[in-house]
Amino acid sequence: MPGVVLGPARYGKAENRVVRVVREGRTHHIKDLNVSIALEGDLEETHTLGRNDKVLPTDTTKNTVYAFAREHGIASAEGFALLLARHFVAGRESIHRARVRIEEYGWDRIEVPAAGTDGTADDASAPGTGKPDPPRHSFVRSGRETRIAQVTVEAGSCEVLAGLTGLTVLNTTASEFHGFAEDRYTTLEETSDRILATEVTALWRYADHLSGADSGPVPDGDPTPDWDARWTAARDHLLTAFALTHSLSLQQTLYEMGGRVVRRVPGVAEIRLSLPNRHHVPVDLTPFGLENDREVHIAADRPYGLIEATVLREGATARIPPDLTNAL
Amino acid sequence: MPGVVLGPARYGKAENRVVRVVREGRTHHIKDLNVSIALEGDLEETHTLGRNDKVLPTDTTKNTVYAFAREHGIASAEGFALLLARHFVAGRESIHRARVRIEEYGWDRIEVPAAGTDGTADDASAPGTGKPDPPRHSFVRSGRETRIAQVTVEAGSCEVLAGLTGLTVLNTTASEFHGFAEDRYTTLEETSDRILATEVTALWRYADHLSGADSGPVPDGDPTPDWDARWTAARDHLLTAFALTHSLSLQQTLYEMGGRVVRRVPGVAEIRLSLPNRHHVPVDLTPFGLENDREVHIAADRPYGLIEATVLREGATARIPPDLTNAL
Amino acid sequence: MPGVVLGPARYGKAENRVVRVVREGRTHHIKDLNVSIALEGDLEETHTLGRNDKVLPTDTTKNTVYAFAREHGIASAEGFALLLARHFVAGRESIHRARVRIEEYGWDRIEVPAAGTDGTADDASAPGTGKPDPPRHSFVRSGRETRIAQVTVEAGSCEVLAGLTGLTVLNTTASEFHGFAEDRYTTLEETSDRILATEVTALWRYADHLSGADSGPVPDGDPTPDWDARWTAARDHLLTAFALTHSLSLQQTLYEMGGRVVRRVPGVAEIRLSLPNRHHVPVDLTPFGLENDREVHIAADRPYGLIEATVLREGATARIPPDLTNAL
Amino acid sequence: MPGVVLGPARYGKAENRVVRVVREGRTHHIKDLNVSIALEGDLEETHTLGRNDKVLPTDTTKNTVYAFAREHGIASAEGFALLLARHFVAGRESIHRARVRIEEYGWDRIEVPAAGTDGTADDASAPGTGKPDPPRHSFVRSGRETRIAQVTVEAGSCEVLAGLTGLTVLNTTASEFHGFAEDRYTTLEETSDRILATEVTALWRYADHLSGADSGPVPDGDPTPDWDARWTAARDHLLTAFALTHSLSLQQTLYEMGGRVVRRVPGVAEIRLSLPNRHHVPVDLTPFGLENDREVHIAADRPYGLIEATVLREGATARIPPDLTNAL
Repeated sequence: MPGVVLGPARYGKAENRVVRVVREGRTHHIKDLNVSIALEGDLEETHTLGRNDKVLPTDTTKNTVYAFAREHGIASAEGFALLLARHFVAGRESIHRARVRIEEYGWDRIEVPAAGTDGTADDASAPGTGKPDPPRHSFVRSGRETRIAQVTVEAGSCEVLAGLTGLTVLNTTASEFHGFAEDRYTTLEETSDRILATEVTALWRYADHLSGADSGPVPDGDPTPDWDARWTAARDHLLTAFALTHSLSLQQTLYEMGGRVVRRVPGVAEIRLSLPNRHHVPVDLTPFGLENDREVHIAADRPYGLIEATVLREGATARIPPDLTNAL
Repeated sequence: MPGVVLGPARYGKAENRVVRVVREGRTHHIKDLNVSIALEGDLEETHTLGRNDKVLPTDTTKNTVYAFAREHGIASAEGFALLLARHFVAGRESIHRARVRIEEYGWDRIEVPAAGTDGTADDASAPGTGKPDPPRHSFVRSGRETRIAQVTVEAGSCEVLAGLTGLTVLNTTASEFHGFAEDRYTTLEETSDRILATEVTALWRYADHLSGADSGPVPDGDPTPDWDARWTAARDHLLTAFALTHSLSLQQTLYEMGGRVVRRVPGVAEIRLSLPNRHHVPVDLTPFGLENDREVHIAADRPYGLIEATVLREGATARIPPDLTNAL
Repeated sequence: MPGVVLGPARYGKAENRVVRVVREGRTHHIKDLNVSIALEGDLEETHTLGRNDKVLPTDTTKNTVYAFAREHGIASAEGFALLLARHFVAGRESIHRARVRIEEYGWDRIEVPAAGTDGTADDASAPGTGKPDPPRHSFVRSGRETRIAQVTVEAGSCEVLAGLTGLTVLNTTASEFHGFAEDRYTTLEETSDRILATEVTALWRYADHLSGADSGPVPDGDPTPDWDARWTAARDHLLTAFALTHSLSLQQTLYEMGGRVVRRVPGVAEIRLSLPNRHHVPVDLTPFGLENDREVHIAADRPYGLIEATVLREGATARIPPDLTNAL
Repeated sequence: MPGVVLGPARYGKAENRVVRVVREGRTHHIKDLNVSIALEGDLEETHTLGRNDKVLPTDTTKNTVYAFAREHGIASAEGFALLLARHFVAGRESIHRARVRIEEYGWDRIEVPAAGTDGTADDASAPGTGKPDPPRHSFVRSGRETRIAQVTVEAGSCEVLAGLTGLTVLNTTASEFHGFAEDRYTTLEETSDRILATEVTALWRYADHLSGADSGPVPDGDPTPDWDARWTAARDHLLTAFALTHSLSLQQTLYEMGGRVVRRVPGVAEIRLSLPNRHHVPVDLTPFGLENDREVHIAADRPYGLIEATVLREGATARIPPDLTNAL
C-alpha cells in the first residue's frame, strides 16, 4: 500500500454565538455575532501520533471569544476578528495562521409610539410610556441578509475580507437577454424585457495598510478604518448598481455591481460575487383566454442560473476563493 | 380484520409561487405570494374506489391561482384568498369547503441616490440617473417575517385568519422571572433582570360581518376591510406591547401582546401566539478573572421554552387550532 | 375597548436532545431522542397577573427529561413519553394535562470486517481487530425518516400516538390518473402510467386499554405493548401497501396505506396521512430529435399536490388533528 | 476612481434535478441526481460590454443534461459528469473549462413480502401479490448521506473528485482527549472516555490515467474505472476506520479515516475531510442525587469543534480546496 502524509490542516470552534449588550443609561445597544475560529500550524504529530501537546482545545478558542467580547468589547465584526486572530497567532508558536470568520445579524430599535398617540389609554402594564423618554432596550431583527467578516492573520500578513449573503433583489424591467450563442440543445427564446432577480452573496477584500498587499489608497492613513461605514457603503453601492444598471445579462449586472464597490469603497481591491439567477417565468394564460403581458409570474425554485465572478481593481491580484456558495 | 372507513380528507395544490407586477408608468409594484389550496367534500369514492370524477385536479387549482392573479389582481392576501376560496366552493357541488393559505413576502423599494449625490460621476451604465425621476422598478426583500393569510369558506360561513411568523424580538432588560414553583428537579435560579428574546408566530381571527360569527364591531359596515392596514396595525401592536411590557414571565408578555391586538385592531376576536423562549445565557467569565454583569451572552439553540396561548375578546370562542408551529 | 380573556394555553421545554448509552460488556446500545414537553392547567394568573407560583419552570421540565432517562431508562419512545406525561400530571395539582412529543432518530451498528478480510494488513491504529469479537460501540445514522411518539395524559384519559415523517417513496409505474373533473381552468392531460412519489408523514392512534377509548382489541391484555414492534410493523405495512397498490390516484394509495395499518397493526384505531405528491415530469426531448418514453424526468420542487386524509377503524372517532405538516 | 478589470468568472445552470428510469422487464432501476454546471472561458465582453455572442445560455446547459441522460444513460455519476464536461469544452472554442458537480441520492428497493406471509389475506387492491415474482418498481430513499461527484475538464487535463456529505457516525467509547496545550482561557477537563460523533464530509481525488496527474497506479489500465465500486469501498473504509480507531483526538481519527481511503481505494491520491465534532455532554445529575456514568448525554448543537485536513498519498500534491463546508 502507498504511504500517506498529512496535507493542509486546521481546527477550531465553529459558530460561537455571542450577543453583547452595551448600556448607556436607558439606551442599550447590542451586537449579535456568530464567530468561527480556524487555526493552522504544527499539527503533524496530532494527526499522525495523537499527540495533543500542541493542540489548543477548541473549547479554549470558544472561551477566548467570550472573554474578548468582555475585555475588549465589539467595536465592529472586522475589528473583533482582527483582535482574535492576532491573539491566537501571537500567543502560541505552534499556531502559524488564524482565520476568524464572523456572521453578524442586524437588529433595529423598536420605536415605541409616544403615550396615547394612537388615541387610546395606555396598557396598565406599560410603565413609563407617558414619560418624555420611552425605554430604549427593545429590538427587532432587521433585513434578511447576514453580514460577513473574515480575517486571516499569519506572520507578516493580514487579510481582511467583508461581505454579505442573503440580500435578495429584483428588477421588474430593464433586463434583456438576447444575441446569445446557440447549439443543438438551445431552445431559449430571446427577451427584451424580463424580471431579473437574484440573492446576492458578495465577499470583498480590503487592501490598504492593514494587509500591506496590493498598491492601494490608504484612507487618510487612518490607523483603524471605519469598518461599519465601509460595509454600509458597499451594501448601498451593490443595491444602487443593481437598480441603475440596464441589464443585457446578469453577468453584466454583476460586473457593474462589483465595479461600483471597487471604485467607490475605500480600500477595496477585489470583490467576488455569486449571483443565482432566480428565474421568474411569465405564466401562459392563453388556455384560459387571458393575455399575460409580463404581469403574472411563477417564481421558480430549481434549476437556477448561477453567475459567479471576481471584479478587481487594476493591478490587484485575485485572492478570494471561487466558491462562495454551494459547499458540499 | 376490522373494517375501515374514510375520515376527514382534503386535497389541493400547495405552495404556488406567484409574483404579480403592476405598472404605473415608470413606477412598478409587486406582490409576492405563496398560495396553498386545500379542498374538502365528497371524496369517499376517490379514496375507496379510485373514482376521480369528483376530483378537480390539483393542477387545476394551481391554474386557477395564476388565472385569478391576472383576472382579479391581488389587492391583498386576504382578499385574494377570499376570491379563490369562494370560487372553489361555489363552482362545484362536490366541494364543500375550501381553505386558502397564503404566505406573503415583503419587498421594499430600492431608493436610488439622485445623480452625483455621492460626489462622483455616474456609471456609464446608469442611464437616466440624471433625470428628475429615477427608475422605480427595483426592490429588495424586506424584514425577516412572513405574513400569513388563511381563509376558509363553506356553505354559510367564512373564516378569515391573518398572522405572521419569523418576527424576532429582544429586550435587553425589563424582564424578570422568580417566585415559580419548585420540585425535586428544579435547579433554576431566580432572576430580576434578564434578556427576553422570542421569534413571534401569531395568528388572529377576524370576527366582523365577513364571518358573521361572534358579536363584534363591524368597521363602519365597510364591505371590504382594509386588510393591509389591519395587518400592519397588528404587527405594530405586537412590537409595541413587547417593548412596553415590563415582563414577569414570557407568559405575561404573550398576554399583553395578544390583548393589545384584540383590543386595538378592528374586528379581531381571537389571537393565538406561539413564543419560543430564545434563551440568552450570561457567560461565566470568573475563571478568567472577569466580571460579566449581563453584558456577554450565549444565544442558545436548543432546548428552548415554548409558550403558547390564545387571547380572546370577551364572549368570543377559541377556534384557532393550538399547534401553530412544530408540525411533524 | 373590548375586554379580553385567556383561552387555551400551555408551556414547557421543547427539543430536549437526549442520547442514552446502555452497555452490555463490549456491546453498546443507544437511544437518540428529541423530547418536547407541553403542560396545561391553571395558568390564568400567570398570564394575566405575572404570578408564577403555579408555574413549573420549563428548565425543570428539561431536568426531568434527563433525570428520568437515567432513573428509568428508555425502553421505547412511547414508554418514555408515558412515564414523563404521567409524572407531570400526577405531581402537581395545577397541571391538568401533559403532552410529551418525541422525535426518535435511528442508528445502525457499523459492521466491522473481520481482521484482514479485505486482504490487507490492519491499521496500526486498529487494536483488537484480530480478536474474535470486534468492538460493538460504533454506529451510523440510518434511514431518512424520523420516528414520532406523542402521548397526552390528563385525569382519566391517556392518548398514545405514534408515527413517522420523512419516509420518501417512489413507484416507477403502476400509477394512473384520469377520469377527473374538469372546468375552464383544467389543462392537465390524463395519464395511464406515471411516476408516483411522495414523502410520507403519518400519525396513528392506539386505542387499546391504554386509552380506554374506542372499542378495540386489547393485545393479550398485555399491560405494556411492544411499541417498537408495532411501529416497525406500521412502517413495513405503509411501504408494502405503497408498493402493492396499483394506483388510480394518490388519494387511493393513501387509503390503502392507512387501511393496511389500521387492519393489521394491533390497537390502531385511526391513522392520519399527509402525502405531498412529488411530481416527476417527463422532459420533452423532441426539440432535440429524441423520444422520451417515461425515462428522463424532472423532479419538481414546488408547487406540489398535497393529499391528506384520516383512515378509521369502523366505529372509531377521528381525533388526530388535520394539520400534520405545514405549520406557520 | 481606480480602474477595474474582470477576474475569474464562470456560469451555468445549477441544481438540475434528473431522475432516470431504466426498465428490465418488471424490474426497474432509477438514478436520482442533482447536476450543476459551471463553465469558464472567454467571458470578458459579456461582463464588460453585455455582449452575449459567446454565452451558451444556462438554459442550454440544462437541456444538455436532460438530453444526455436520454442519449447516453447514466452509468455512474462520475461517468455522466465526464461526458457532460467533455462535451462543453469540446463543443465550443470560447469555453476553456467545464466543472460538473453532481449530488446523487440513494434509493433502496422496497421488498414486498410474498403473498400471505404475514398470515393475512391480501388487500383486494394488491394484484399480483400471489404471483411468484412481485413487482420490482418500488423504492424508498436510503441513508442520510449524499454522494458527490465533481469533474473538471480543460484542455489537456481532467480532474475527477468523488465524495459524500451527511454521513453521521458515533462511537460510544474508545475516544480520549488529554495532554492538550493550555493557556489562561483553558477550562476544559481531560477525558479518557467520551462519546465521539461527527457528520462526515469527504472529497477525494482520483489520480490515475484519467487525470494523468500524480504518479499513481492505474487500475489494470482499465479505461473506465468502476466508479460505483470505488465510491462504495471508500464509504466502507471511512466507516471501518472510524469504528476501529481508538481515538486520542478527532484529528487522529480523521487521519486514520483519510489514510485508509488513500491506501486502499484504487487511484485515490488525496482526500479532504471536514469533521464537525458533535459534542455529547454527560448531564450533571448530582443535584437530583443521581450518578451519571457516561449514560445520559445532551447532544449539543452549537458551537462545535471543526476539524479539517487533507491526507495525501506520498508524492501527491494537495489540490482539493480547503473549504468543503461552511460556504457563506
